[in-house]
Amino acid sequence: MNIERRDLRPDDVQFNILYCGICHSDLHQVKNDFGASRYPMVPGHEIVGRVTAVGSAVTSFKVGDLAAVGCIVDSCGTCPACHRDLEMFCEGVEGSTLSYNSQDRVLGGITYGGFSQTYVCKEKYTLRVPENLDLAAAAPLLCAGITVYSPLKHWGAGAGKVVGIVGIGGLGHVAIRIAKAMGAHVVVFTTSPSKVEDAKRLGAHEAVLSTDPEQMKKFSSKIDILLDTVSASHDVNSYLNLLAIDGNLVLVGLPAKPLEIGAFNVVKGRRSFSGSNIGGIAETQEMLDFCTEHGIVADIELIRADQINEAFERLEKNDVRYRFVVDMSTLS
Amino acid sequence: MNIERRDLRPDDVQFNILYCGICHSDLHQVKNDFGASRYPMVPGHEIVGRVTAVGSAVTSFKVGDLAAVGCIVDSCGTCPACHRDLEMFCEGVEGSTLSYNSQDRVLGGITYGGFSQTYVCKEKYTLRVPENLDLAAAAPLLCAGITVYSPLKHWGAGAGKVVGIVGIGGLGHVAIRIAKAMGAHVVVFTTSPSKVEDAKRLGAHEAVLSTDPEQMKKFSSKIDILLDTVSASHDVNSYLNLLAIDGNLVLVGLPAKPLEIGAFNVVKGRRSFSGSNIGGIAETQEMLDFCTEHGIVADIELIRADQINEAFERLEKNDVRYRFVVDMSTLS
Repeated sequence: MNIERRDLRPDDVQFNILYCGICHSDLHQVKNDFGASRYPMVPGHEIVGRVTAVGSAVTSFKVGDLAAVGCIVDSCGTCPACHRDLEMFCEGVEGSTLSYNSQDRVLGGITYGGFSQTYVCKEKYTLRVPENLDLAAAAPLLCAGITVYSPLKHWGAGAGKVVGIVGIGGLGHVAIRIAKAMGAHVVVFTTSPSKVEDAKRLGAHEAVLSTDPEQMKKFSSKIDILLDTVSASHDVNSYLNLLAIDGNLVLVGLPAKPLEIGAFNVVKGRRSFSGSNIGGIAETQEMLDFCTEHGIVADIELIRADQINEAFERLEKNDVRYRFVVDMSTLS
Repeated sequence: MNIERRDLRPDDVQFNILYCGICHSDLHQVKNDFGASRYPMVPGHEIVGRVTAVGSAVTSFKVGDLAAVGCIVDSCGTCPACHRDLEMFCEGVEGSTLSYNSQDRVLGGITYGGFSQTYVCKEKYTLRVPENLDLAAAAPLLCAGITVYSPLKHWGAGAGKVVGIVGIGGLGHVAIRIAKAMGAHVVVFTTSPSKVEDAKRLGAHEAVLSTDPEQMKKFSSKIDILLDTVSASHDVNSYLNLLAIDGNLVLVGLPAKPLEIGAFNVVKGRRSFSGSNIGGIAETQEMLDFCTEHGIVADIELIRADQINEAFERLEKNDVRYRFVVDMSTLS
């Protein structure tokens, strides 16, 4: 399929896409699980590329630079949320514009994502990627990375804090690395015996088989920030009971069915069940810089463009450690 | 029924009970709704009285002073929670000792509450009540007052903040007054058309009939702190959608059945569904001082001891505006 990218405007950056990660939400969008999919669709929002042209007003990118785009490519820029650098919660009439399947503020029509050869994005929403990162493995940071970095930062992960990570997948495995780099004591909860060891390889201080009540009991009321990356239905109450006084369970997955929460599980210990959704543009840049400083990238399986459908099938079965990334030079 | 109070120890305060409020949780305890009731039971934990004797080491009370006791009468005093003045979350093996239906740390056996003539309590857990408060109307502050004051304070209610109060009952009506005195803009949500006007009389800036979707829509994403005082099952999602970015819905009621929460309702706007349980001893004193300064007491219906059973029946039907208080001098 041929899609057109807009002609360069003064504040636009155009780039060739080198790599694009496959996120679980791409699968949801392709299958219309959220009920808002518009076809034809070009998914992909973990995009790293090299600049091929810049508009006349662009000052921070030049041809040949690396550039990256995550979930957000535009927003109103004037609402209180945008002023607070929380573009993901843009309160403008149209909300934030996402990199695909979103109303295009500039051209009209629908935005098309990163499973393509080129991208055009406003300078303000284009991110800088350092040359010394493994670019294919860095691509997933644009969504998975910021999705876990933002809540860890917001709720104060750091030295002296115990951070729990529920689920080791695309998000969870990056979260382990980021939480550890922030200085927290990291405890991973997984239902897969095979992932207990992998959690330690990824840097977790402790790993718990969450199906074992005895192991779970050991962490009762011990976790300050519990990052819940699970998108399937699951028992949240057993995790709420792991929270220390004033602890937060932060949901970053999106289970389709409502979750059941017992009142006592939050009233006891003044606990919170919270949510978080990616992060703003400035914070995404901060995350990329943080990951560069600490040498953090994702564990990926690099595939060709003609393997995307197969990758979606394997993703549905959680058969990837831990993120597929498409080498876009293979798109013919 | 005759109950014995312990002999005065050096750090004890003994007092005659003047007034004791009836809290909804007394009804739950009497009916064993929480499954932990032990009989015979003497309920009552909103207790105001006058000191009749003090132990040799007591320094802050003397005979003839007013004294009050709320939900907590003892705790380990050595755990991290107690050190943080959060005795309600005491992490000692026995947890905090409640004013009734609780393991007595001193005598053994079970504690008996305020529907009685006298009480003996450690000085450290005994509160000071100013002489110029309406003592009968002040009694409900000991539980209802601190239950709403603590979360309002913790989550930053004050000037520039919009505070929502869900439900106008024993807790809600005091919450309106306290939130307003803290300087917040107060919006009340009620299912009773008859309470819309009463909410304004109580000081609310706005009152919303929560069964009217149009009225609800007006407050979409507008509330910073939403205090949910409802103990019955209810739709929390429609309230979560009222929260502004970083807003907290704080549950202080105790619905018996789990509440259903849709993931999108917290992920959008980084919202939190939180809980809160009374408050510590120091904060309860702070609340009493705050209420004295701002002239805040409860709206009460003063009853005789022989009307308690009838009051329980009416309480079950929410037929009280807004708190029953028993004149304990009528106990023969």
